[in-house]
Amino acid sequence: MSDLWSTSKEFIKGFIAGQIILICFMFFLIKFFLFQNPSKNVSTKRRRKIFEVTKTHSPQNQALNILSKIRYDPNSTGAETCEWLNVLIAQAIAKYRNDSGFLNRIIRVLDEEINGSKKPNFLSPITITEFSLGEDFPMLKSSCIRFVENSINLRAEIRFEFHDQITLGIETQVLVNWPKIMMAALPVALSVTLTKFSGTISIEFINSKDSPASFISISILEEDLNLEFDCKSMLGNRTKVKDLPKLTQLIINRLRKSFFELIVFPNSKKFNVPSFWPDAEENFLELNLEQEDELENLIDENLENKKLL
Amino acid sequence: MSDLWSTSKEFIKGFIAGQIILICFMFFLIKFFLFQNPSKNVSTKRRRKIFEVTKTHSPQNQALNILSKIRYDPNSTGAETCEWLNVLIAQAIAKYRNDSGFLNRIIRVLDEEINGSKKPNFLSPITITEFSLGEDFPMLKSSCIRFVENSINLRAEIRFEFHDQITLGIETQVLVNWPKIMMAALPVALSVTLTKFSGTISIEFINSKDSPASFISISILEEDLNLEFDCKSMLGNRTKVKDLPKLTQLIINRLRKSFFELIVFPNSKKFNVPSFWPDAEENFLELNLEQEDELENLIDENLENKKLL
Repeated sequence: MSDLWSTSKEFIKGFIAGQIILICFMFFLIKFFLFQNPSKNVSTKRRRKIFEVTKTHSPQNQALNILSKIRYDPNSTGAETCEWLNVLIAQAIAKYRNDSGFLNRIIRVLDEEINGSKKPNFLSPITITEFSLGEDFPMLKSSCIRFVENSINLRAEIRFEFHDQITLGIETQVLVNWPKIMMAALPVALSVTLTKFSGTISIEFINSKDSPASFISISILEEDLNLEFDCKSMLGNRTKVKDLPKLTQLIINRLRKSFFELIVFPNSKKFNVPSFWPDAEENFLELNLEQEDELENLIDENLENKKLL
Repeated sequence: MSDLWSTSKEFIKGFIAGQIILICFMFFLIKFFLFQNPSKNVSTKRRRKIFEVTKTHSPQNQALNILSKIRYDPNSTGAETCEWLNVLIAQAIAKYRNDSGFLNRIIRVLDEEINGSKKPNFLSPITITEFSLGEDFPMLKSSCIRFVENSINLRAEIRFEFHDQITLGIETQVLVNWPKIMMAALPVALSVTLTKFSGTISIEFINSKDSPASFISISILEEDLNLEFDCKSMLGNRTKVKDLPKLTQLIINRLRKSFFELIVFPNSKKFNVPSFWPDAEENFLELNLEQEDELENLIDENLENKKLL
């Protein structure tokens, strides 16, 4: 009985010993093959791999590369309608039209602009009497991508039409400052309405060769531009002279000239491509310096690793 | 002779007197009828007319009003292609891909995110070893405007396809902190690639009823969403265990879940409609107060004018 007990006790001892040794063996096996010693230098210092952009495409090739990937041929692909975009744009415009804060902000900016330092001193302060953003919505008729003439750059050409009544009315007085200052004043009321505006918007990405900055250039092509203004004028106090043709023509010509100088091709409005992070531009130089530092660190680490092996 | 001289002298005197009187008469006539006395109060204080927005359309009617003006019928108008937009989007993406500052900024943000406070303490710092924004471009296939189900709101539905290799690779160590801290470490390398991403983007303008703020809600519809990941994993130090199916599945499921929670309808990303002037929102209340002030001033002025008349 005690023999049986002692043999079974020995068996249990052996059983446990065998398991412990096997567990230890497996543990060291796993530790050796799968695990490694925690690298303490990594945990105190973060490594960040720095990625270099390999510019495989020159700006010229890039345009062609994009076209081939998108499978768009500017010479053969016809213009596409974009009515869905009209609805989105109309919704955005309706939003702004219904926002009294936005309207009053426009009026405030206009007011500051026309009463600013540029106002000649023979005019009394100018009051905005009428302001309307209209009721209708611009209609994009068709869009296509074409090459810019004599260039390999691409631009989107979007035909649009806009029949509406965007009106700005002002009132002022022309002061007669002779023989004495503010001798008399001629009341002038003007109201200018944009009635028809159609043409082709061109949107072009322009990459500058040296800096990483690129921008979007938006302009309106002259070929089919149709810009019609309606101008009402009223002079005088008790007797009123209405719609002087000479004055009307003068104002309309001045407006057209400003518009052409502002946005009609080859003039254009330039917008920076948004960089998502406001401090990205500022970080650019900083990053370059940091990259050099980190590259040096990486090289140092590699050397150390080799020594350890 | 002296007679002739005196008569002609008298004639000249009369001639000049006649002209002077006529000039004076005309001057006073013009001054009386056309001119007015310069209003000095206007020149010291600027008046600005305050425009109230007459909200003629409720948000519901507004959607219908826009559709009728644009002549778009969501029930019958078919989907439109938008290949021209593909080219513009590809140009913008190519720009970001070639901008090493932008890429490194993404990596920095990712690095801060994954090594931030959320990282559990059994992981050693995570190193980004691979990052690629791919080579291909998303393709918009078709766009249309449809009513949102059970609502009068409109949304643009844009079908897109994106076959590419957007890759993020990381390396870390799972630390064994028992029986003592940093006993051993299991190296883990993971690389996740987004290989296929197609579905329908929905863009919806949402007007809140009470405040003037409205926002753009962008989400992805679940119906035809196809989101495929490829996940590579590597465990171990000397012996490496590759692509454990269980781990791969776990990671892919986790990613899909995060994606669904982030942007798949009815979840959505909301963006404020840009207000052009950064201080417009702040000015809104201020303007309202100012409007009241100015309205009072206008009423005061009108009363004064009536008294003068």
